[in-house]
Amino acid sequence: MTALLDLLLGTDDAEGLWTDRARLAGMLAFEAALARAEAGVGAIPATAVAPIAAGCHAELYDPDDLGRQAVEAGNPAIPLVRMLTLKVAERDAAAAGYVHWGATSQDAMDTGLVLQLRRFLEPLEAALQALRRALAERACAERDTPMAGRTWLQQGPPVTFGLKAAGWLDALQRQQQRLVELKPRLLTLQLGGAVGTLAALGERAGAVAKALAADLNLSLPAVPWHALRDRLGEFAAWQGLLLGLLGKLARDLSLMMQNEVGEASEGGAAGRGGSSTMAHKRNPLSCAVILAAAGEAPGLVAALFAALPQEHERGLGNWQVEWQVLPRLCRLTLGAARAAGTLIENLQLDRRRMRENLALTQGLILAEAVTMALGAALGRQKAHALIEGATRRARAEGVHLKAMLATLPEVRRVLDDDALDRLFQPDSYLGEAGRFVDAVLAKER
Amino acid sequence: MTALLDLLLGTDDAEGLWTDRARLAGMLAFEAALARAEAGVGAIPATAVAPIAAGCHAELYDPDDLGRQAVEAGNPAIPLVRMLTLKVAERDAAAAGYVHWGATSQDAMDTGLVLQLRRFLEPLEAALQALRRALAERACAERDTPMAGRTWLQQGPPVTFGLKAAGWLDALQRQQQRLVELKPRLLTLQLGGAVGTLAALGERAGAVAKALAADLNLSLPAVPWHALRDRLGEFAAWQGLLLGLLGKLARDLSLMMQNEVGEASEGGAAGRGGSSTMAHKRNPLSCAVILAAAGEAPGLVAALFAALPQEHERGLGNWQVEWQVLPRLCRLTLGAARAAGTLIENLQLDRRRMRENLALTQGLILAEAVTMALGAALGRQKAHALIEGATRRARAEGVHLKAMLATLPEVRRVLDDDALDRLFQPDSYLGEAGRFVDAVLAKER
Amino acid sequence: MTALLDLLLGTDDAEGLWTDRARLAGMLAFEAALARAEAGVGAIPATAVAPIAAGCHAELYDPDDLGRQAVEAGNPAIPLVRMLTLKVAERDAAAAGYVHWGATSQDAMDTGLVLQLRRFLEPLEAALQALRRALAERACAERDTPMAGRTWLQQGPPVTFGLKAAGWLDALQRQQQRLVELKPRLLTLQLGGAVGTLAALGERAGAVAKALAADLNLSLPAVPWHALRDRLGEFAAWQGLLLGLLGKLARDLSLMMQNEVGEASEGGAAGRGGSSTMAHKRNPLSCAVILAAAGEAPGLVAALFAALPQEHERGLGNWQVEWQVLPRLCRLTLGAARAAGTLIENLQLDRRRMRENLALTQGLILAEAVTMALGAALGRQKAHALIEGATRRARAEGVHLKAMLATLPEVRRVLDDDALDRLFQPDSYLGEAGRFVDAVLAKER
Amino acid sequence: MTALLDLLLGTDDAEGLWTDRARLAGMLAFEAALARAEAGVGAIPATAVAPIAAGCHAELYDPDDLGRQAVEAGNPAIPLVRMLTLKVAERDAAAAGYVHWGATSQDAMDTGLVLQLRRFLEPLEAALQALRRALAERACAERDTPMAGRTWLQQGPPVTFGLKAAGWLDALQRQQQRLVELKPRLLTLQLGGAVGTLAALGERAGAVAKALAADLNLSLPAVPWHALRDRLGEFAAWQGLLLGLLGKLARDLSLMMQNEVGEASEGGAAGRGGSSTMAHKRNPLSCAVILAAAGEAPGLVAALFAALPQEHERGLGNWQVEWQVLPRLCRLTLGAARAAGTLIENLQLDRRRMRENLALTQGLILAEAVTMALGAALGRQKAHALIEGATRRARAEGVHLKAMLATLPEVRRVLDDDALDRLFQPDSYLGEAGRFVDAVLAKER
Repeated sequence: MTALLDLLLGTDDAEGLWTDRARLAGMLAFEAALARAEAGVGAIPATAVAPIAAGCHAELYDPDDLGRQAVEAGNPAIPLVRMLTLKVAERDAAAAGYVHWGATSQDAMDTGLVLQLRRFLEPLEAALQALRRALAERACAERDTPMAGRTWLQQGPPVTFGLKAAGWLDALQRQQQRLVELKPRLLTLQLGGAVGTLAALGERAGAVAKALAADLNLSLPAVPWHALRDRLGEFAAWQGLLLGLLGKLARDLSLMMQNEVGEASEGGAAGRGGSSTMAHKRNPLSCAVILAAAGEAPGLVAALFAALPQEHERGLGNWQVEWQVLPRLCRLTLGAARAAGTLIENLQLDRRRMRENLALTQGLILAEAVTMALGAALGRQKAHALIEGATRRARAEGVHLKAMLATLPEVRRVLDDDALDRLFQPDSYLGEAGRFVDAVLAKER
Repeated sequence: MTALLDLLLGTDDAEGLWTDRARLAGMLAFEAALARAEAGVGAIPATAVAPIAAGCHAELYDPDDLGRQAVEAGNPAIPLVRMLTLKVAERDAAAAGYVHWGATSQDAMDTGLVLQLRRFLEPLEAALQALRRALAERACAERDTPMAGRTWLQQGPPVTFGLKAAGWLDALQRQQQRLVELKPRLLTLQLGGAVGTLAALGERAGAVAKALAADLNLSLPAVPWHALRDRLGEFAAWQGLLLGLLGKLARDLSLMMQNEVGEASEGGAAGRGGSSTMAHKRNPLSCAVILAAAGEAPGLVAALFAALPQEHERGLGNWQVEWQVLPRLCRLTLGAARAAGTLIENLQLDRRRMRENLALTQGLILAEAVTMALGAALGRQKAHALIEGATRRARAEGVHLKAMLATLPEVRRVLDDDALDRLFQPDSYLGEAGRFVDAVLAKER
Repeated sequence: MTALLDLLLGTDDAEGLWTDRARLAGMLAFEAALARAEAGVGAIPATAVAPIAAGCHAELYDPDDLGRQAVEAGNPAIPLVRMLTLKVAERDAAAAGYVHWGATSQDAMDTGLVLQLRRFLEPLEAALQALRRALAERACAERDTPMAGRTWLQQGPPVTFGLKAAGWLDALQRQQQRLVELKPRLLTLQLGGAVGTLAALGERAGAVAKALAADLNLSLPAVPWHALRDRLGEFAAWQGLLLGLLGKLARDLSLMMQNEVGEASEGGAAGRGGSSTMAHKRNPLSCAVILAAAGEAPGLVAALFAALPQEHERGLGNWQVEWQVLPRLCRLTLGAARAAGTLIENLQLDRRRMRENLALTQGLILAEAVTMALGAALGRQKAHALIEGATRRARAEGVHLKAMLATLPEVRRVLDDDALDRLFQPDSYLGEAGRFVDAVLAKER
Repeated sequence: MTALLDLLLGTDDAEGLWTDRARLAGMLAFEAALARAEAGVGAIPATAVAPIAAGCHAELYDPDDLGRQAVEAGNPAIPLVRMLTLKVAERDAAAAGYVHWGATSQDAMDTGLVLQLRRFLEPLEAALQALRRALAERACAERDTPMAGRTWLQQGPPVTFGLKAAGWLDALQRQQQRLVELKPRLLTLQLGGAVGTLAALGERAGAVAKALAADLNLSLPAVPWHALRDRLGEFAAWQGLLLGLLGKLARDLSLMMQNEVGEASEGGAAGRGGSSTMAHKRNPLSCAVILAAAGEAPGLVAALFAALPQEHERGLGNWQVEWQVLPRLCRLTLGAARAAGTLIENLQLDRRRMRENLALTQGLILAEAVTMALGAALGRQKAHALIEGATRRARAEGVHLKAMLATLPEVRRVLDDDALDRLFQPDSYLGEAGRFVDAVLAKER
């Protein structure tokens, strides 16, 4: 809510995308374009365009003043149109009569919001692009870096850090594809007039809508969408999904950053993440920012979904839910996307600790590899039973599984020392990991 | 939870899509296809296929027994594979060794789930198809039926019922398009082995995955998705969005069904929706079912989104959230989609009440029409001021706005009795409503 | 997010309860009291108290500057303590060594938050007090004002507006009681040091905690609660519950405000709730504000609940969720509570329309009354069957139920014209409504 | 949804608390008590009681049949009352006329639900009691067992496992206190008749309500609560809070169970938590069950909160949300509470690994202890600077902090070898941990 925490949690609005100013700019861009479109099709005099356009600059208005009037009006567009009309009238009384011609407040607010969202997509896509680039580099660089796979937080056979990075990247590629698909739906004109019939625009209504969509470079909808908010809901869900994926990335990395695991740490500015009482600590701040955003998002998406059943031609209390929840969600998304980019770019990996952790179970995580190798010779069930027994004994006696196996004649008959050594090399049991990385990287180019 | 309420709230699982049996069938379809695919590429002997396939029938297994074993194992696939192996061994001990070859429990569970979801989409799409057909018929039949537009639950200029129906339909068309886009993502094979590297399958891993995807007619992913659950999250969000839209439809209709509005009522079986103490009442049951589903859904979507950050190669407690939440959501969606179809098909409209309600404000809702008409002659601002004054007086004196305007010389100069009469016909102020309906219906063909 | 919408949606922070300044003030109040408490029990020199206290004024610090440093540190307390230490050192180098003695950042932040919440409760309780007073007046004034009862949005037997108001009030009384119960839990000191053991304070730790709690007039917990956040969760849920109840009140009233119902309207400043295109409209703005708050709240509560499982001695990404979500929730709560007070105070009721609406079903909503009256003489089942038949005929023929009943000999034998007239007076079928109102009002005194 | 997963996730309903049968039993208990209460105050003949009571046994009714009829009626109470009436009429036609006398469906459903919730509280409180006992034992046994404190998943100064357990227990004690407070609110009679006025009961309405509350041993409310659902919302939130706390416990333990931490593991039946492909693994199943429940709960609570604004005297679609969501939440709560009890009872701790992990940072986590010790002699700031430098060098050179400090003359002047040794004993820097444990245990007795 406040600047201090916004900064700290990366939800500050450095670009000013969600300020009063930006909101006014969105609505005023609508009003100016509306005048142009209407004049273009002869719905209003061409002479009205310039005076109206001249008034459509956000810095001409005082948000606090507007805010006070908006309280009386129920939305910010009503006083803004009133002020704009006065402003235009100062230059051209006749033109003032054509301000907001045939439109309703919600048209200005919704189309203004769409324009804001289009602006918002620029830094967001840039942030995601940077993140994908950083992930691709990591996936490439660590394509063959083995580390313990972990399921249920328990070690399993090895994976590679490259594979982890490729998995995150693959999901982001899907998110990008989803964005491509939803963009034309999201970036759609809202123009409906008082109740969505455009009746006030008379015969030229269709032409005005078409011209306005073209002017603003927005999709022209089959029907105005003032009370059907699935386009916004879809985008909110997309953001929620993205934050969930970023949360997955941050969760994995933060677990790797535990002292007891020690495979990664957040790099970056010296002193970052230091503790007030624990001088030696380096806290995973970027992870925290991302996880905090991912933790707040589901409730926001749920609020927007719950607000979908809006009454008749304009909702009562549910349309209004969008007004603050959607910008909030956008701020979380951009903040988390940037934090993820920074995190990956500055990430410090400790390959030595990865190797050490792979050795932690004394070979047990490679039991599957030996089972498969023995199975080919002995049959799978026999191999399985044999390894299970050896595993149990190795654990009980605190012995390495390889050493235990080396004592078993059934094993020695099939696997000599070299073969056993090879089986217990994590690098030799990485399966398709490298090829999976390649497949994801191929899509990135 | 219980059959009684499931029936009542339309969340019963008439097709048995989410029963234990169906879940087992999904996993067993995976196991059978895995054997075929592996034999096809030479990863296991061709002779293993038939005995394994023979064991892959859900009715061979006792879900309660499996349930008890699953408690010990942590998932249902482990005991199922064990039982399947025993079953295969009865026929062919060698084949038994190739059951579930190189796969992990989650592969069976996730791919099984995907197969269940594909089955689920059939009745769901049928229900949506029926709903769209019913809406298209209504939109067509009521294309020009005027009724009061309502914003903030207050009357505004007229709309048509056809436009309302077209708005709902337009949104459902978008949902259909979204489904087309997400389907190939959702219907994707999961095959990763213990930690997602397919290491146990050795050199033939890639070939097995490709053959398996082809056999099951599922997309082949670039990387296994065991811990990256955006595909399921996307589908959950799609369902949440759909339920929100159905809720919108039900909200609108239920408001029209109020005694004081009286423009619609739920048709259908006599006695349906009767009250225990109020013999005359007919409760909007289908609306209630839909709104109840729309009310439960956002929290379920939020739970699935919050579960996205799953730890490393398999989540701890978050993967498990999906197991019951996703089927629950599916049941709500199918139930609500069907209820909406029934609702629209049996809907009884009262055009007389719609007309009467249009007259309720004594012409005030058509003030905009007169303003626009006068504006052409007098200038918009003058017209606006004039109408505002007349409106205020008409309200204060309880007089129809037309009668009030007829007393004003400025008005009389521009509009004669016929012109005034025409302006106060709701039918003559419907703007683009008809054309919007046509545009939506054109997409339906 | 922005001032304009904050004003409009009543989520502005007029008291400055959630500003950077207030947050700093909370933390600094902790630091000053900590020094006093520690000096009081001899843990630090008494001479350190005054210099430290002198630095504990929020206006001495620049939030933007702090914000930037907080980004590096991961929380705002670390740089604040650093700055405070410098500030104290300017006066007294020795005292500077005792700033924040033995405490950790989270102690300052959590206890500071608790102090902010205590301040927040003042205007909130005042707003709720005002709302209850207004409701009590309405319940009293409209104790016997009949209006249609409505279930499933269908008319039933009459209730009174007084009963509606009493129902809302009764729920608010329960909320007040819940607040009384939770306050000592919520208003609890957090002092744990780095990991909750207070080890840095040595032998005097217990005495310091006790003295500090006494100094700040907060409860002393059995164990520090840095990672056990149920106290905050409980308060968040209390707010969510309150917003749900306020939403119920606003939902009811907004439905009564529909043109077709017309039983209520929002009073207040002229022009409030006017529409840009519909001059005659008065939109229910206060209802919208309340419903918007009630619509956003459940997701916020869910986010806080989902953040409860915080890792070990301090959470990673979940503690941070609280930082912005809890203040947001507080702003919604206070805004909605005030809006509800205004709404009830200025509410305009239309008793005539209430009466008219009671007549809408031509006596059907009083069928139960007649059934009970006849049942005494004829037996309940016979009476029920008789009335059901009459009801059906009355509806079919468009006749008033009383008139229909007057034609039936079985009825005439038991009820004469006077008796029938009386039965069809809504006022005579209000049951316990008045006594229920009295019972609630009795609790208010 | 299905038995298999219900068993696996501990959401099976072993006691049959939420079956159709139990639901019917709840409603029938209401109907029988209503007849007794009404006869007791002379509202119906005393002779009606026995025949009605004889019909009030759930096993007399077929839930499937009822379910089908409920679909037509909109709730299960309508057909149940119809069937009950028929059943009573078989014995005593006159008595049948007094079934459900003056009540409405919702009265039976809501009071029935309250009775179910009371039954549910028995096993739930027993489970919580068992959990608290197990926690108290652990807190006592491990009162002085040091382990690393961890904040942001980074090691800090030591805590004890006893303190962790005491923290969880302390929170559960608060939950118990909250339950004591809310119980009289939750366990409250609902009796309002058609719209909440009890008009059908005439003059004896108040007496009937009082007698019924006494008969069922429920609180008598000031006003019926059919459309004011805060009592249920409060209980839902209490459950959500409890699940969050249990999730906290499971989160902590599951992190301790990582191979790389190795401080704890789930005990219990051999083979439990085994993996299909990783023979050596033991998955934390109970933790998963608890975390899955904690992950699903916030969305359910949010759904119930969002359903609070129910329309007028009975909601449309929101009341219905409760029907399945509340039982679902109850099943999660009971399942998780039991799983937590099992988890703590069977928990295996590894004190050796705890010690080893304390040594992982080579003394760094005890830097604070030394700072405090040196501070007394050198002044805090000087001590701080000195330790910070030593810490940095120790990390850089890979040397134990104690060894590094032993080389510094400033340190040697104050601390000899023995003093240094003592400072680097984790046991000597546990602060109030033991006393905190004692304080919590004292409340348990």
